[in-house]
Amino acid sequence: MGTTEKVAQFIVNTTYDQIPAEAIAVAKSAIVDGLGVAVAGSQTETGRIVARWAKEMGGAPAAGVVGAGFKTALPIAARANGTMAHALDYDDVTKNTGHPTPPLLPVLLTLGETQRASGRELLEAYVVGFELESKLGNSMSRKHYAHGWHSTSIFGTMGAAAAAAKLLKLDVWQTQMALGIAASEAAGLRQNFGTMTKPYHAGLAAANGVIAATLARQGFTSAADILEGEFGFLRVFSMPGEYDEAKISETLANPWNLIANGIGLKPYPCCRNAHRPVDAMLALIRAHGFAPEQVEQIDCEISAHVTKVMTYEQAHTGLEGKFCLPYCLAVAVCDQRVGIRQFAETRVRDPQVQALSKRVQIIHPYDRTEWDTGELLPCIVRVRLTDGRVLEASAGSPRGDPDNPLTWEEIADKYRDCARELLAEGDVERTLELLQRLEEQPNPAELMEILTFKGKPATR
Amino acid sequence: MGTTEKVAQFIVNTTYDQIPAEAIAVAKSAIVDGLGVAVAGSQTETGRIVARWAKEMGGAPAAGVVGAGFKTALPIAARANGTMAHALDYDDVTKNTGHPTPPLLPVLLTLGETQRASGRELLEAYVVGFELESKLGNSMSRKHYAHGWHSTSIFGTMGAAAAAAKLLKLDVWQTQMALGIAASEAAGLRQNFGTMTKPYHAGLAAANGVIAATLARQGFTSAADILEGEFGFLRVFSMPGEYDEAKISETLANPWNLIANGIGLKPYPCCRNAHRPVDAMLALIRAHGFAPEQVEQIDCEISAHVTKVMTYEQAHTGLEGKFCLPYCLAVAVCDQRVGIRQFAETRVRDPQVQALSKRVQIIHPYDRTEWDTGELLPCIVRVRLTDGRVLEASAGSPRGDPDNPLTWEEIADKYRDCARELLAEGDVERTLELLQRLEEQPNPAELMEILTFKGKPATR
Repeated sequence: MGTTEKVAQFIVNTTYDQIPAEAIAVAKSAIVDGLGVAVAGSQTETGRIVARWAKEMGGAPAAGVVGAGFKTALPIAARANGTMAHALDYDDVTKNTGHPTPPLLPVLLTLGETQRASGRELLEAYVVGFELESKLGNSMSRKHYAHGWHSTSIFGTMGAAAAAAKLLKLDVWQTQMALGIAASEAAGLRQNFGTMTKPYHAGLAAANGVIAATLARQGFTSAADILEGEFGFLRVFSMPGEYDEAKISETLANPWNLIANGIGLKPYPCCRNAHRPVDAMLALIRAHGFAPEQVEQIDCEISAHVTKVMTYEQAHTGLEGKFCLPYCLAVAVCDQRVGIRQFAETRVRDPQVQALSKRVQIIHPYDRTEWDTGELLPCIVRVRLTDGRVLEASAGSPRGDPDNPLTWEEIADKYRDCARELLAEGDVERTLELLQRLEEQPNPAELMEILTFKGKPATR
Repeated sequence: MGTTEKVAQFIVNTTYDQIPAEAIAVAKSAIVDGLGVAVAGSQTETGRIVARWAKEMGGAPAAGVVGAGFKTALPIAARANGTMAHALDYDDVTKNTGHPTPPLLPVLLTLGETQRASGRELLEAYVVGFELESKLGNSMSRKHYAHGWHSTSIFGTMGAAAAAAKLLKLDVWQTQMALGIAASEAAGLRQNFGTMTKPYHAGLAAANGVIAATLARQGFTSAADILEGEFGFLRVFSMPGEYDEAKISETLANPWNLIANGIGLKPYPCCRNAHRPVDAMLALIRAHGFAPEQVEQIDCEISAHVTKVMTYEQAHTGLEGKFCLPYCLAVAVCDQRVGIRQFAETRVRDPQVQALSKRVQIIHPYDRTEWDTGELLPCIVRVRLTDGRVLEASAGSPRGDPDNPLTWEEIADKYRDCARELLAEGDVERTLELLQRLEEQPNPAELMEILTFKGKPATR
């Protein structure tokens, strides 16, 4: 049996009862986290534009657009919701694959709504979608990314097609067709990083998955061997010889990547590379309680790869702040937290934060980078106070990583913080309640009703 | 000025009056030809499925779906119409780029309808779209295709975005944004050749272009240097060093590729590689008037690359017939023509045609192929009759190629043959009349009204 057929068999035959409780728990956390982030994303400029676009395109009122007050055609809603889910760069991460949830979540929201899928069916769809995108990521070398592909959308398109096929209850052949169509839609260039088109990649992947699966259900055909074929997905999106098909075909659900790779949730809405320094800084503040005016100088020792990604020495906008390590450390001192509001334009321009960020020095004392070693190098934050004291803390795995996970209460608090961008307090708590007991919900109708229509009128 | 900005300037600043009459004439022929083929494509299984899918997705009634009797949201209509335009593999071809018109035509049909664009504006949009996709094709080596990309959709997405930007009258910056978004949507794998997903690639490209340009109009952002950037379109879709940026930036409109490359129109709805043998065979029939029962044996001498593409020795279905050279020659003898009806399932299974196709022998007498030489090798068809006579004809450039073009009357006849698949005689003639004077039309409303709603009820 070919790899594509094996994958299709896996998608069709996996049932909720076979999935380990640990994997379900990871999936559920990712869904709650991703949804909160999408709700907050709906209130960004990116989110507002894509909602206006969806409205302009028009569509039968099938599925809701988060925070936008209307329903529209499935692929249009999926495109908008997926873009919102990645707009803040606050969404989850997983090894080798990029951001796993933003391409999957909109499939759950849109097809979940039209199919009136139960909470268990939504979790099943998430789990098979994650497993495929994550095993595809494992199967290719880093050259996939180095060549210029955005893994999130390329692998995400395939995962989204798997999730959509599952929710539509396609049979094995139809699922192969859906995967074949999806592979011809998979796209996304890294050149667009730093623009709205980066979050759009997640919306694109979600829409691609919905379109592929709904076309396949209508009887549309594609190559049945799209993964392994000579001009198929694996070979075309790798460099020749730079992929290992067995890492897909021989490891489906064994191990489950939701357990083996796990999912990293972000406690701070900025580049993942800022997380360890911010962890260390917040620990220092908690332990010593100093104020910004007491700080003379901040040193941060860290792997040199960080400044290859976080390229801004000074931030002028919220988006730049997310990729400016001095700003992240300075605002952590000033506000004693790093949340959505810390990347508001007005907050970034605050003179006190700006002044402090100029007193931050990034040091690369190591002769190799974490990209070379693949392992964490020491990350040390050292704060010199005006009274002569020197405070120092070092960070291990970033908070939110699988080996340093957020507690449920922290995940719930992040959800609240995000959802408050759109919803009134009562609706924030009601949606959290529905999500917390996702596996018991008969369908997502109430959840989607609130998320679509109950936004604060002022924010529309 | 970067290449992307140059391209955007070209798209924005090109006006109808600056385009040479010869280029307009080629564009117009391609539009008429492409539209006829799309109308016939709407009546194929592929076309019917994609129309059902569009109906299922639902959408505001903005733009018509050819032959389907309804209007829907722009990107959904573009996706369906583009798929129809490539469904019969009867659409046009151009050097280095694949099939140029099926990704462009649906942009003209959908945005042309909603923008109430004049015939001249439609031609302008076609010309800039063709120029971009064709120059992109010229800029890359054959390794793009050899790696597994379907040029038609990859370059077509960029051309469709250019045409859409032109019809929406975007400014230079917005056009750069549209190109940036489109590059992140460009996709299509050769593995799907021989399935419905191959024609879908054209619909995908058209929808990609419409989405990119409408998002850009809303203010959505992307990389402004998407063509030349390190992780941009040219580098990612080529192998390293396998592209020449100057072939875009330094040759826009100089020469116009509509004139320099030209467009090949297909007189027969089968693989382009069958065209020269069919040309020779039809010439023999016209000259000597023999019947199938007089034929003892047919030999065809031709470049060996042909059987690498036309892989079927015997055809069992209409789609296989298009890629089976013995069938194409046999049915030419039996029917004295090679049109849409010659690839109907019932015609392919006819015992007389089947028997004759077994008496066809394909011979490769040359030690190199046309893929090696890049030039035509002699193509000779030899018919041995039962009375002992041996008739022989050789073929030069295939009929329909820029150096052996179809006459306007032949193009019009092909349009009629195609359009009759859907429309009653009066509507066939009325649409042809509108197309023939395209540059005088105030907008495409009447044309689209007929194509969308006036199909024979029986064929829906």
